[in-house]
Amino acid sequence: MISRKQLIEQIKQKKSFLCVGLDTDIDKIPEFLKQYPDPILEFNKRIIDATKDLCVSYKPNAAFYEARGIKGLQSLIDTWKYLPTDTLNIIDAKRGDIGNTSDKYAKAFFDENASGMSFDAITITPYMGNDSVTPYLAYEGKWIIILALTSSVGSKDFQYLQTGDGYLYETVIKKANTWAGADRIMYVVGATKSTEFTNIRQYAPDNFLLVPGVGAQGGSLADVCKYGITKDCGLIVNASRSIIYASNGEDFADAARAEALSMQRQMQVELEKAGVI
Amino acid sequence: MISRKQLIEQIKQKKSFLCVGLDTDIDKIPEFLKQYPDPILEFNKRIIDATKDLCVSYKPNAAFYEARGIKGLQSLIDTWKYLPTDTLNIIDAKRGDIGNTSDKYAKAFFDENASGMSFDAITITPYMGNDSVTPYLAYEGKWIIILALTSSVGSKDFQYLQTGDGYLYETVIKKANTWAGADRIMYVVGATKSTEFTNIRQYAPDNFLLVPGVGAQGGSLADVCKYGITKDCGLIVNASRSIIYASNGEDFADAARAEALSMQRQMQVELEKAGVI
Repeated sequence: MISRKQLIEQIKQKKSFLCVGLDTDIDKIPEFLKQYPDPILEFNKRIIDATKDLCVSYKPNAAFYEARGIKGLQSLIDTWKYLPTDTLNIIDAKRGDIGNTSDKYAKAFFDENASGMSFDAITITPYMGNDSVTPYLAYEGKWIIILALTSSVGSKDFQYLQTGDGYLYETVIKKANTWAGADRIMYVVGATKSTEFTNIRQYAPDNFLLVPGVGAQGGSLADVCKYGITKDCGLIVNASRSIIYASNGEDFADAARAEALSMQRQMQVELEKAGVI
Repeated sequence: MISRKQLIEQIKQKKSFLCVGLDTDIDKIPEFLKQYPDPILEFNKRIIDATKDLCVSYKPNAAFYEARGIKGLQSLIDTWKYLPTDTLNIIDAKRGDIGNTSDKYAKAFFDENASGMSFDAITITPYMGNDSVTPYLAYEGKWIIILALTSSVGSKDFQYLQTGDGYLYETVIKKANTWAGADRIMYVVGATKSTEFTNIRQYAPDNFLLVPGVGAQGGSLADVCKYGITKDCGLIVNASRSIIYASNGEDFADAARAEALSMQRQMQVELEKAGVI
Protein backbone atom coordinates (compact mmCIF):
# COMPACT_ATOMS: atom_id res chain seq x y z
CA MET A 1 0.00 0.00 0.00
CA ILE A 2 1.41 3.35 -0.96
CA SER A 3 -0.41 6.63 -0.51
CA ARG A 4 -0.17 9.65 -2.75
CA LYS A 5 1.99 11.34 -0.14
CA GLN A 6 4.34 8.38 0.11
CA LEU A 7 4.59 8.20 -3.66
CA ILE A 8 5.55 11.85 -3.92
CA GLU A 9 8.07 11.45 -1.08
CA GLN A 10 9.66 8.56 -2.86
CA ILE A 11 9.87 10.43 -6.15
CA LYS A 12 11.71 13.23 -4.36
CA GLN A 13 14.01 10.85 -2.55
CA LYS A 14 14.94 8.72 -5.55
CA LYS A 15 14.81 11.69 -7.94
CA SER A 16 12.94 9.44 -10.28
CA PHE A 17 9.42 8.76 -11.52
CA LEU A 18 10.34 5.64 -13.39
CA CYS A 19 8.17 2.54 -13.56
CA VAL A 20 9.83 -0.63 -14.78
CA GLY A 21 7.43 -2.73 -16.83
CA LEU A 22 7.90 -6.44 -16.21
CA ASP A 23 6.55 -7.66 -19.55
CA THR A 24 8.69 -10.73 -19.23
CA ASP A 25 8.64 -13.00 -22.26
CA ILE A 26 10.17 -16.47 -22.11
CA ASP A 27 11.27 -16.10 -25.74
CA LYS A 28 13.22 -12.91 -25.05
CA ILE A 29 15.09 -13.58 -21.82
CA PRO A 30 18.74 -14.72 -21.81
CA GLU A 31 19.23 -18.38 -22.60
CA PHE A 32 21.30 -19.15 -19.50
CA LEU A 33 18.31 -18.42 -17.22
CA LYS A 34 16.51 -21.48 -18.54
CA GLN A 35 18.53 -23.67 -16.15
CA TYR A 36 16.58 -22.18 -13.22
CA PRO A 37 13.35 -23.79 -11.97
CA ASP A 38 11.44 -20.62 -12.90
CA PRO A 39 13.39 -18.61 -15.50
CA ILE A 40 10.77 -15.82 -15.57
CA LEU A 41 10.97 -15.32 -11.81
CA GLU A 42 14.76 -15.46 -11.87
CA PHE A 43 14.82 -12.81 -14.60
CA ASN A 44 12.40 -10.57 -12.70
CA LYS A 45 14.29 -10.90 -9.42
CA ARG A 46 17.53 -9.80 -11.05
CA ILE A 47 15.82 -6.90 -12.84
CA ILE A 48 14.24 -5.80 -9.56
CA ASP A 49 17.53 -6.05 -7.65
CA ALA A 50 19.28 -4.04 -10.36
CA THR A 51 16.73 -1.23 -10.57
CA LYS A 52 14.91 -0.80 -7.24
CA ASP A 53 16.89 2.24 -6.11
CA LEU A 54 16.22 3.94 -9.47
CA CYS A 55 12.48 3.49 -9.90
CA VAL A 56 9.34 4.17 -7.87
CA SER A 57 7.10 1.57 -9.44
CA TYR A 58 6.97 -1.89 -11.04
CA LYS A 59 4.32 -3.00 -13.47
CA PRO A 60 4.00 -6.61 -14.58
CA ASN A 61 1.60 -6.97 -17.50
CA ALA A 62 -0.73 -9.86 -16.68
CA ALA A 63 -0.93 -11.10 -20.28
CA PHE A 64 2.70 -12.17 -20.36
CA TYR A 65 2.10 -14.43 -17.37
CA GLU A 66 -1.34 -15.69 -18.36
CA ALA A 67 0.07 -16.83 -21.69
CA ARG A 68 1.97 -19.53 -19.79
CA GLY A 69 -0.99 -20.95 -17.88
CA ILE A 70 -0.45 -22.24 -14.34
CA LYS A 71 3.31 -21.82 -14.35
CA GLY A 72 2.93 -18.25 -15.60
CA LEU A 73 0.50 -17.39 -12.83
CA GLN A 74 2.90 -18.90 -10.30
CA SER A 75 5.68 -16.67 -11.70
CA LEU A 76 3.43 -13.65 -11.31
CA ILE A 77 2.53 -14.50 -7.70
CA ASP A 78 6.18 -15.12 -6.82
CA THR A 79 7.23 -11.93 -8.57
CA TRP A 80 4.64 -9.98 -6.58
CA LYS A 81 6.06 -11.46 -3.37
CA TYR A 82 9.53 -10.30 -4.37
CA LEU A 83 8.56 -6.71 -5.20
CA PRO A 84 9.79 -4.01 -2.78
CA THR A 85 7.14 -2.81 -0.33
CA ASP A 86 7.91 0.86 -0.91
CA THR A 87 7.34 0.93 -4.68
CA LEU A 88 3.93 1.37 -6.30
CA ASN A 89 3.30 -2.13 -7.57
CA ILE A 90 0.88 -2.05 -10.47
CA ILE A 91 -0.77 -5.01 -12.12
CA ASP A 92 -1.33 -4.05 -15.73
CA ALA A 93 -4.44 -6.13 -16.25
CA LYS A 94 -6.74 -3.72 -18.10
CA ARG A 95 -9.79 -5.40 -16.63
CA GLY A 96 -13.36 -4.12 -16.89
CA ASP A 97 -16.61 -5.99 -16.20
CA ILE A 98 -19.98 -5.49 -14.48
CA GLY A 99 -20.16 -4.90 -10.73
CA ASN A 100 -20.33 -8.41 -9.27
CA THR A 101 -17.62 -9.59 -11.68
CA SER A 102 -15.32 -6.61 -11.05
CA ASP A 103 -15.50 -7.59 -7.44
CA LYS A 104 -13.94 -10.93 -8.39
CA TYR A 105 -11.17 -9.24 -10.38
CA ALA A 106 -10.51 -7.03 -7.36
CA LYS A 107 -10.10 -10.20 -5.29
CA ALA A 108 -7.76 -11.63 -7.93
CA PHE A 109 -5.35 -8.73 -7.73
CA PHE A 110 -5.95 -6.99 -4.39
CA ASP A 111 -6.73 -9.82 -1.95
CA GLU A 112 -3.73 -11.96 -1.02
CA ASN A 113 -5.86 -14.40 0.96
CA ALA A 114 -7.99 -15.14 -2.06
CA SER A 115 -5.44 -15.24 -4.88
CA GLY A 116 -1.94 -14.99 -3.42
CA MET A 117 -1.41 -11.43 -4.67
CA SER A 118 -2.13 -7.92 -3.47
CA PHE A 119 -0.92 -5.26 -5.85
CA ASP A 120 -1.19 -1.56 -4.96
CA ALA A 121 -2.88 -0.58 -8.20
CA ILE A 122 -4.64 -2.07 -11.22
CA THR A 123 -5.18 -0.75 -14.74
CA ILE A 124 -8.85 -0.62 -15.77
CA THR A 125 -10.57 -0.22 -19.12
CA PRO A 126 -13.47 2.25 -18.84
CA TYR A 127 -15.84 1.06 -21.60
CA MET A 128 -18.42 -0.49 -19.25
CA GLY A 129 -18.64 2.60 -17.04
CA ASN A 130 -19.10 3.23 -13.36
CA ASP A 131 -19.87 -0.23 -12.00
CA SER A 132 -16.82 -1.68 -13.76
CA VAL A 133 -14.61 0.67 -11.74
CA THR A 134 -16.04 1.29 -8.29
CA PRO A 135 -15.72 -2.24 -6.78
CA TYR A 136 -11.94 -1.79 -6.78
CA LEU A 137 -12.31 1.37 -4.72
CA ALA A 138 -13.81 -0.66 -1.87
CA TYR A 139 -10.25 -1.80 -1.17
CA GLU A 140 -8.99 1.01 1.01
CA GLY A 141 -5.73 2.56 -0.08
CA LYS A 142 -5.61 0.77 -3.44
CA TRP A 143 -5.36 2.68 -6.70
CA ILE A 144 -7.16 2.29 -9.99
CA ILE A 145 -5.48 3.45 -13.16
CA ILE A 146 -8.01 4.07 -15.91
CA LEU A 147 -7.14 3.87 -19.59
CA ALA A 148 -7.68 7.32 -21.10
CA LEU A 149 -5.45 7.91 -24.12
CA THR A 150 -3.33 4.90 -24.93
CA SER A 151 -0.14 4.57 -26.94
CA SER A 152 -1.71 1.90 -29.15
CA VAL A 153 -2.05 2.34 -32.90
CA GLY A 154 -5.78 1.78 -32.45
CA SER A 155 -6.19 4.67 -29.99
CA LYS A 156 -7.47 6.76 -32.91
CA ASP A 157 -10.37 4.37 -33.52
CA PHE A 158 -12.47 5.38 -30.52
CA GLN A 159 -10.51 7.48 -28.02
CA TYR A 160 -10.45 10.46 -30.39
CA LEU A 161 -14.14 10.39 -31.20
CA GLN A 162 -15.86 13.72 -30.57
CA THR A 163 -18.54 13.22 -27.94
CA GLY A 164 -19.97 16.73 -27.90
CA ASP A 165 -17.92 17.34 -24.77
CA GLY A 166 -14.47 16.92 -26.29
CA TYR A 167 -12.77 13.70 -27.27
CA LEU A 168 -13.94 10.43 -25.75
CA TYR A 169 -10.75 10.16 -23.67
CA GLU A 170 -11.49 13.60 -22.16
CA THR A 171 -15.04 12.55 -21.34
CA VAL A 172 -13.66 9.45 -19.65
CA ILE A 173 -11.39 11.55 -17.45
CA LYS A 174 -14.09 14.07 -16.56
CA LYS A 175 -16.58 11.34 -15.70
CA ALA A 176 -14.15 9.18 -13.73
CA ASN A 177 -13.09 12.21 -11.70
CA THR A 178 -16.62 12.26 -10.28
CA TRP A 179 -16.08 8.71 -8.93
CA ALA A 180 -12.99 9.32 -6.77
CA GLY A 181 -10.21 11.81 -6.23
CA ALA A 182 -6.57 12.11 -7.22
CA ASP A 183 -5.62 10.02 -4.18
CA ARG A 184 -7.29 6.92 -5.71
CA ILE A 185 -7.43 7.38 -9.49
CA MET A 186 -4.62 7.70 -12.01
CA TYR A 187 -4.98 7.74 -15.80
CA VAL A 188 -3.02 6.05 -18.55
CA VAL A 189 -1.85 8.56 -21.13
CA GLY A 190 0.56 7.40 -23.83
CA ALA A 191 3.87 9.23 -24.24
CA THR A 192 3.32 9.26 -27.97
CA LYS A 193 0.57 11.85 -27.38
CA SER A 194 2.69 14.43 -25.56
CA THR A 195 0.92 17.53 -26.86
CA GLU A 196 -2.35 16.22 -25.44
CA PHE A 197 -0.98 16.49 -21.91
CA THR A 198 -1.71 20.23 -21.78
CA ASN A 199 -5.29 19.42 -22.54
CA ILE A 200 -5.49 16.59 -20.02
CA ARG A 201 -4.06 18.75 -17.25
CA GLN A 202 -7.13 20.99 -17.54
CA TYR A 203 -9.36 18.12 -16.38
CA ALA A 204 -6.87 16.20 -14.27
CA PRO A 205 -4.62 18.83 -12.72
CA ASP A 206 -3.66 16.66 -9.74
CA ASN A 207 -4.02 13.09 -10.93
CA PHE A 208 -0.93 11.04 -11.48
CA LEU A 209 -0.65 9.94 -15.09
CA LEU A 210 0.88 6.57 -15.92
CA VAL A 211 2.74 7.09 -19.14
CA PRO A 212 3.71 4.16 -21.35
CA GLY A 213 5.32 4.55 -24.73
CA VAL A 214 8.69 6.10 -23.87
CA GLY A 215 11.46 3.93 -25.28
CA ALA A 216 10.48 1.10 -27.61
CA GLN A 217 7.29 2.88 -28.74
CA GLY A 218 9.09 6.17 -29.53
CA GLY A 219 7.65 8.73 -27.05
CA SER A 220 9.91 11.50 -25.72
CA LEU A 221 10.45 11.98 -21.98
CA ALA A 222 11.27 15.67 -22.42
CA ASP A 223 8.00 16.30 -24.28
CA VAL A 224 5.94 14.39 -21.73
CA CYS A 225 7.44 16.51 -18.94
CA LYS A 226 7.12 19.73 -20.87
CA TYR A 227 3.37 19.32 -21.10
CA GLY A 228 2.50 16.97 -18.23
CA ILE A 229 4.64 17.53 -15.14
CA THR A 230 3.11 19.19 -12.05
CA LYS A 231 4.49 20.60 -8.79
CA ASP A 232 4.05 17.12 -7.26
CA CYS A 233 5.51 15.54 -10.40
CA GLY A 234 2.19 13.89 -11.28
CA LEU A 235 3.83 11.46 -13.69
CA ILE A 236 4.93 7.88 -13.59
CA VAL A 237 6.74 7.03 -16.77
CA ASN A 238 6.91 3.39 -17.69
CA ALA A 239 9.60 1.69 -19.73
CA SER A 240 9.48 -2.02 -20.33
CA ARG A 241 11.32 -3.46 -23.31
CA SER A 242 14.00 -0.73 -23.47
CA ILE A 243 15.10 -1.59 -19.92
CA ILE A 244 14.47 -5.27 -19.38
CA TYR A 245 15.76 -6.33 -22.79
CA ALA A 246 18.68 -3.86 -22.94
CA SER A 247 20.91 -6.92 -23.32
CA ASN A 248 20.09 -10.57 -23.72
CA GLY A 249 23.46 -11.80 -22.51
CA GLU A 250 24.65 -12.65 -19.00
CA ASP A 251 25.01 -8.91 -18.35
CA PHE A 252 21.27 -8.28 -18.83
CA ALA A 253 20.71 -6.97 -15.30
CA ASP A 254 23.67 -4.58 -15.54
CA ALA A 255 22.46 -3.37 -18.92
CA ALA A 256 18.95 -2.87 -17.48
CA ARG A 257 20.46 -0.89 -14.62
CA ALA A 258 22.44 1.30 -17.01
CA GLU A 259 19.31 2.03 -19.02
CA ALA A 260 17.26 2.74 -15.87
CA LEU A 261 20.05 4.99 -14.57
CA SER A 262 20.09 6.94 -17.80
CA MET A 263 16.33 7.48 -17.50
CA GLN A 264 16.60 8.39 -13.81
CA ARG A 265 19.19 11.07 -14.67
CA GLN A 266 16.97 12.59 -17.33
CA MET A 267 14.10 12.49 -14.83
CA GLN A 268 16.19 14.25 -12.18
CA VAL A 269 16.82 17.09 -14.63
CA GLU A 270 13.10 17.36 -15.33
CA LEU A 271 12.19 17.28 -11.62
CA GLU A 272 14.67 20.07 -10.93
CA LYS A 273 13.45 22.09 -13.87
CA ALA A 274 9.85 21.83 -12.63
CA GLY A 275 10.84 22.67 -9.06
CA VAL A 276 9.65 19.33 -7.66
CA ILE A 277 13.08 18.82 -6.07
CA MET B 1 -13.53 -24.91 -33.08
CA ILE B 2 -17.02 -24.25 -34.33
CA SER B 3 -17.85 -22.44 -37.53
CA ARG B 4 -20.82 -20.17 -38.16
CA LYS B 5 -22.41 -22.95 -40.19
CA GLN B 6 -21.91 -25.51 -37.43
CA LEU B 7 -23.30 -23.12 -34.86
CA ILE B 8 -26.46 -22.54 -36.91
CA GLU B 9 -26.82 -26.28 -37.49
CA GLN B 10 -26.60 -26.91 -33.79
CA ILE B 11 -29.16 -24.24 -32.98
CA LYS B 12 -31.58 -25.90 -35.38
CA GLN B 13 -30.88 -29.35 -34.02
CA LYS B 14 -31.15 -28.48 -30.34
CA LYS B 15 -33.88 -25.89 -30.96
CA SER B 16 -31.99 -23.65 -28.59
CA PHE B 17 -29.66 -20.68 -28.63
CA LEU B 18 -28.88 -20.85 -24.95
CA CYS B 19 -25.46 -20.18 -23.49
CA VAL B 20 -24.88 -21.32 -19.92
CA GLY B 21 -22.63 -18.90 -18.06
CA LEU B 22 -20.28 -20.69 -15.70
CA ASP B 23 -19.76 -17.84 -13.25
CA THR B 24 -19.03 -20.33 -10.54
CA ASP B 25 -18.59 -18.84 -7.10
CA ILE B 26 -17.25 -20.93 -4.25
CA ASP B 27 -19.51 -19.03 -1.82
CA LYS B 28 -22.65 -19.90 -3.77
CA ILE B 29 -22.30 -23.56 -4.65
CA PRO B 30 -23.94 -26.31 -2.56
CA GLU B 31 -22.10 -27.09 0.66
CA PHE B 32 -21.84 -30.85 0.00
CA LEU B 33 -19.57 -30.25 -2.99
CA LYS B 34 -16.81 -29.02 -0.72
CA GLN B 35 -15.85 -32.62 0.05
CA TYR B 36 -14.50 -32.95 -3.52
CA PRO B 37 -10.86 -32.14 -4.33
CA ASP B 38 -12.02 -29.33 -6.64
CA PRO B 39 -15.58 -28.26 -5.72
CA ILE B 40 -15.73 -25.69 -8.55
CA LEU B 41 -14.84 -28.30 -11.16
CA GLU B 42 -17.27 -30.81 -9.67
CA PHE B 43 -20.04 -28.20 -9.78
CA ASN B 44 -19.24 -27.28 -13.39
CA LYS B 45 -19.11 -30.90 -14.53
CA ARG B 46 -22.55 -31.60 -13.12
CA ILE B 47 -23.98 -28.42 -14.62
CA ILE B 48 -22.50 -29.34 -18.00
CA ASP B 49 -23.81 -32.92 -17.84
CA ALA B 50 -27.26 -31.62 -16.92
CA THR B 51 -27.52 -29.00 -19.67
CA LYS B 52 -25.43 -29.98 -22.68
CA ASP B 53 -28.35 -31.21 -24.81
CA LEU B 54 -30.23 -27.96 -24.11
CA CYS B 55 -27.61 -25.31 -24.87
CA VAL B 56 -25.28 -24.46 -27.75
CA SER B 57 -22.63 -22.62 -25.77
CA TYR B 58 -20.83 -22.39 -22.42
CA LYS B 59 -19.23 -19.26 -21.07
CA PRO B 60 -17.01 -19.30 -18.00
CA ASN B 61 -16.26 -15.78 -16.78
CA ALA B 62 -12.50 -15.62 -16.12
CA ALA B 63 -12.84 -13.33 -13.09
CA PHE B 64 -14.55 -15.99 -10.99
CA TYR B 65 -11.59 -18.32 -11.50
CA GLU B 66 -8.84 -15.71 -11.23
CA ALA B 67 -10.23 -14.64 -7.85
CA ARG B 68 -9.00 -17.99 -6.49
CA GLY B 69 -5.43 -17.76 -7.76
CA ILE B 70 -3.65 -20.94 -8.88
CA LYS B 71 -6.42 -23.30 -7.81
CA GLY B 72 -8.96 -21.16 -9.65
CA LEU B 73 -6.95 -21.25 -12.85
CA GLN B 74 -6.63 -25.02 -12.51
CA SER B 75 -10.43 -25.25 -12.19
CA LEU B 76 -10.81 -23.18 -15.35
CA ILE B 77 -8.37 -25.33 -17.32
CA ASP B 78 -10.02 -28.54 -16.12
CA THR B 79 -13.47 -27.11 -16.88
CA TRP B 80 -12.35 -26.24 -20.40
CA LYS B 81 -11.15 -29.83 -20.87
CA TYR B 82 -14.57 -31.10 -19.81
CA LEU B 83 -16.59 -28.87 -22.15
CA PRO B 84 -18.32 -30.60 -25.06
CA THR B 85 -16.50 -30.21 -28.39
CA ASP B 86 -19.66 -29.30 -30.30
CA THR B 87 -20.67 -26.27 -28.18
CA LEU B 88 -19.29 -22.78 -28.72
CA ASN B 89 -17.00 -22.45 -25.72
CA ILE B 90 -16.52 -18.81 -24.84
CA ILE B 91 -14.07 -17.40 -22.34
CA ASP B 92 -15.63 -14.26 -20.97
CA ALA B 93 -12.37 -12.44 -20.30
CA LYS B 94 -13.12 -8.93 -21.65
CA ARG B 95 -9.47 -8.42 -22.51
CA GLY B 96 -8.06 -5.51 -24.50
CA ASP B 97 -4.44 -4.37 -24.79
CA ILE B 98 -1.94 -3.21 -27.41
CA GLY B 99 -0.84 -5.50 -30.23
CA ASN B 100 2.10 -7.40 -28.75
CA THR B 101 0.21 -7.86 -25.48
CA SER B 102 -3.04 -8.96 -27.12
CA ASP B 103 -0.96 -11.63 -28.75
CA LYS B 104 -0.14 -12.95 -25.26
CA TYR B 105 -3.79 -12.93 -24.23
CA ALA B 106 -4.59 -14.83 -27.40
CA LYS B 107 -2.03 -17.46 -26.33
CA ALA B 108 -3.57 -17.55 -22.85
CA PHE B 109 -7.01 -18.48 -24.14
CA PHE B 110 -6.56 -19.91 -27.64
CA ASP B 111 -3.31 -21.89 -27.47
CA GLU B 112 -3.54 -25.11 -25.50
CA ASN B 113 0.18 -25.78 -25.81
CA ALA B 114 1.00 -22.46 -24.17
CA SER B 115 -1.62 -22.23 -21.43
CA GLY B 116 -3.56 -25.49 -21.25
CA MET B 117 -6.71 -23.97 -22.76
CA SER B 118 -8.13 -23.33 -26.20
CA PHE B 119 -11.54 -21.74 -26.14
CA ASP B 120 -13.50 -21.13 -29.36
CA ALA B 121 -14.19 -17.48 -28.63
CA ILE B 122 -13.13 -14.64 -26.34
CA THR B 123 -14.92 -11.47 -25.26
CA ILE B 124 -12.95 -8.29 -26.03
CA THR B 125 -13.28 -4.71 -24.83
CA PRO B 126 -12.92 -2.30 -27.76
CA TYR B 127 -11.54 0.85 -26.08
CA MET B 128 -7.97 0.50 -27.37
CA GLY B 129 -9.06 -0.04 -30.97
CA ASN B 130 -7.87 -2.10 -33.87
CA ASP B 131 -4.58 -3.53 -32.57
CA SER B 132 -6.28 -4.73 -29.39
CA VAL B 133 -8.56 -6.91 -31.49
CA THR B 134 -6.78 -8.18 -34.59
CA PRO B 135 -4.15 -10.45 -32.93
CA TYR B 136 -6.93 -12.82 -31.91
CA LEU B 137 -8.03 -13.11 -35.53
CA ALA B 138 -4.68 -14.67 -36.42
CA TYR B 139 -6.02 -17.86 -34.80
CA GLU B 140 -7.92 -19.40 -37.64
CA GLY B 141 -11.49 -20.36 -36.89
CA LYS B 142 -11.58 -18.61 -33.50
CA TRP B 143 -14.18 -15.98 -32.71
CA ILE B 144 -13.92 -12.61 -31.04
CA ILE B 145 -16.95 -11.19 -29.26
CA ILE B 146 -16.67 -7.43 -28.90
CA LEU B 147 -18.43 -5.51 -26.15
CA ALA B 148 -20.88 -3.13 -27.81
CA LEU B 149 -23.82 -2.35 -25.54
CA THR B 150 -23.52 -4.03 -22.17
CA SER B 151 -26.12 -4.82 -19.54
CA SER B 152 -24.10 -3.00 -16.88
CA VAL B 153 -25.54 -0.05 -14.98
CA GLY B 154 -22.54 1.96 -16.20
CA SER B 155 -23.31 1.32 -19.89
CA LYS B 156 -24.87 4.78 -20.00
CA ASP B 157 -21.61 6.45 -18.99
CA PHE B 158 -19.82 6.04 -22.31
CA GLN B 159 -21.61 3.59 -24.62
CA TYR B 160 -24.46 6.04 -25.18
CA LEU B 161 -22.28 9.02 -25.95
CA GLN B 162 -23.13 10.66 -29.27
CA THR B 163 -20.09 10.47 -31.53
CA GLY B 164 -21.44 12.39 -34.51
CA ASP B 165 -22.08 9.02 -36.13
CA GLY B 166 -24.62 7.67 -33.69
CA TYR B 167 -23.96 6.32 -30.22
CA LEU B 168 -20.47 5.12 -29.30
CA TYR B 169 -21.66 1.50 -29.28
CA GLU B 170 -22.90 1.89 -32.86
CA THR B 171 -19.58 3.38 -33.94
CA VAL B 172 -17.83 0.41 -32.33
CA ILE B 173 -19.94 -2.01 -34.34
CA LYS B 174 -19.50 -0.14 -37.64
CA LYS B 175 -15.74 0.14 -37.16
CA ALA B 176 -15.21 -3.44 -36.01
CA ASN B 177 -17.19 -4.70 -38.99
CA THR B 178 -14.37 -3.35 -41.18
CA TRP B 179 -11.90 -5.65 -39.36
CA ALA B 180 -13.58 -9.00 -40.01
CA GLY B 181 -16.86 -10.52 -41.08
CA ALA B 182 -19.81 -12.14 -39.37
CA ASP B 183 -17.96 -15.46 -39.50
CA ARG B 184 -15.36 -14.19 -36.98
CA ILE B 185 -16.93 -11.34 -34.99
CA MET B 186 -19.89 -11.35 -32.63
CA TYR B 187 -21.05 -8.48 -30.42
CA VAL B 188 -22.18 -8.33 -26.83
CA VAL B 189 -25.55 -6.60 -26.55
CA GLY B 190 -27.35 -6.65 -23.21
CA ALA B 191 -30.89 -8.04 -23.05
CA THR B 192 -31.88 -5.07 -20.92
CA LYS B 193 -31.57 -2.95 -24.09
CA SER B 194 -34.00 -4.89 -26.25
CA THR B 195 -35.37 -1.94 -28.23
CA GLU B 196 -31.84 -1.14 -29.37
CA PHE B 197 -31.67 -4.42 -31.26
CA THR B 198 -33.61 -2.97 -34.20
CA ASN B 199 -30.98 -0.30 -34.46
CA ILE B 200 -28.07 -2.71 -34.13
CA ARG B 201 -29.46 -4.99 -36.84
CA GLN B 202 -29.02 -2.11 -39.32
CA TYR B 203 -25.24 -2.26 -38.84
CA ALA B 204 -24.85 -5.89 -37.94
CA PRO B 205 -27.51 -7.73 -39.90
CA ASP B 206 -25.63 -11.02 -39.94
CA ASN B 207 -23.47 -10.98 -36.83
CA PHE B 208 -24.35 -13.23 -33.96
CA LEU B 209 -25.10 -11.21 -30.84
CA LEU B 210 -24.17 -12.59 -27.44
CA VAL B 211 -26.90 -11.44 -25.12
CA PRO B 212 -26.38 -11.37 -21.35
CA GLY B 213 -28.92 -9.97 -18.93
CA VAL B 214 -31.85 -12.36 -19.36
CA GLY B 215 -32.75 -13.80 -15.96
CA ALA B 216 -31.06 -12.34 -12.90
CA GLN B 217 -30.56 -8.95 -14.60
CA GLY B 218 -34.19 -8.70 -15.73
CA GLY B 219 -34.04 -8.73 -19.56
CA SER B 220 -36.87 -10.36 -21.51
CA LEU B 221 -36.22 -13.19 -23.97
CA ALA B 222 -39.36 -12.38 -25.97
CA ASP B 223 -38.28 -8.75 -26.42
CA VAL B 224 -34.76 -9.70 -27.42
CA CYS B 225 -36.15 -12.04 -30.09
CA LYS B 226 -38.77 -9.58 -31.26
CA TYR B 227 -36.10 -7.05 -32.16
CA GLY B 228 -32.95 -9.12 -32.64
CA ILE B 229 -33.63 -12.53 -34.19
CA THR B 230 -32.61 -13.20 -37.82
CA LYS B 231 -33.28 -15.97 -40.32
CA ASP B 232 -30.13 -17.72 -39.02
CA CYS B 233 -31.18 -16.96 -35.43
CA GLY B 234 -28.20 -14.62 -34.93
CA LEU B 235 -28.56 -14.71 -31.16
CA ILE B 236 -26.86 -16.52 -28.33
CA VAL B 237 -28.64 -15.73 -25.10
CA ASN B 238 -26.68 -16.23 -21.94
CA ALA B 239 -28.04 -17.08 -18.54
CA SER B 240 -25.74 -17.64 -15.61
CA ARG B 241 -27.07 -17.20 -12.09
CA SER B 242 -30.68 -18.08 -12.93
CA ILE B 243 -29.57 -21.51 -14.17
CA ILE B 244 -26.52 -22.51 -12.16
CA TYR B 245 -27.90 -21.32 -8.82
CA ALA B 246 -31.50 -22.45 -9.42
CA SER B 247 -31.07 -24.50 -6.25
CA ASN B 248 -28.26 -24.73 -3.76
CA GLY B 249 -29.22 -28.12 -2.45
CA GLU B 250 -28.19 -31.59 -3.61
CA ASP B 251 -30.66 -31.24 -6.47
CA PHE B 252 -28.82 -28.24 -7.96
CA ALA B 253 -28.04 -29.97 -11.28
CA ASP B 254 -31.66 -31.10 -11.73
CA ALA B 255 -32.86 -27.59 -10.91
CA ALA B 256 -30.38 -26.14 -13.40
CA ARG B 257 -31.67 -28.55 -16.03
CA ALA B 258 -35.27 -27.59 -15.34
CA GLU B 259 -34.40 -23.91 -15.71
CA ALA B 260 -32.40 -24.54 -18.91
CA LEU B 261 -35.26 -26.65 -20.29
CA SER B 262 -37.73 -23.88 -19.60
CA MET B 263 -35.52 -21.46 -21.53
CA GLN B 264 -34.98 -23.95 -24.35
CA ARG B 265 -38.73 -24.30 -24.74
CA GLN B 266 -39.24 -20.54 -24.94
CA MET B 267 -36.41 -20.42 -27.47
CA GLN B 268 -37.99 -23.14 -29.58
CA VAL B 269 -41.17 -21.06 -29.80
CA GLU B 270 -39.14 -18.03 -30.89
CA LEU B 271 -37.18 -20.04 -33.47
CA GLU B 272 -40.40 -21.38 -34.95
CA LYS B 273 -41.99 -17.95 -34.96
CA ALA B 274 -38.99 -16.51 -36.83
CA GLY B 275 -38.92 -19.40 -39.31
CA VAL B 276 -35.43 -20.55 -38.31
CA ILE B 277 -36.77 -24.05 -37.69
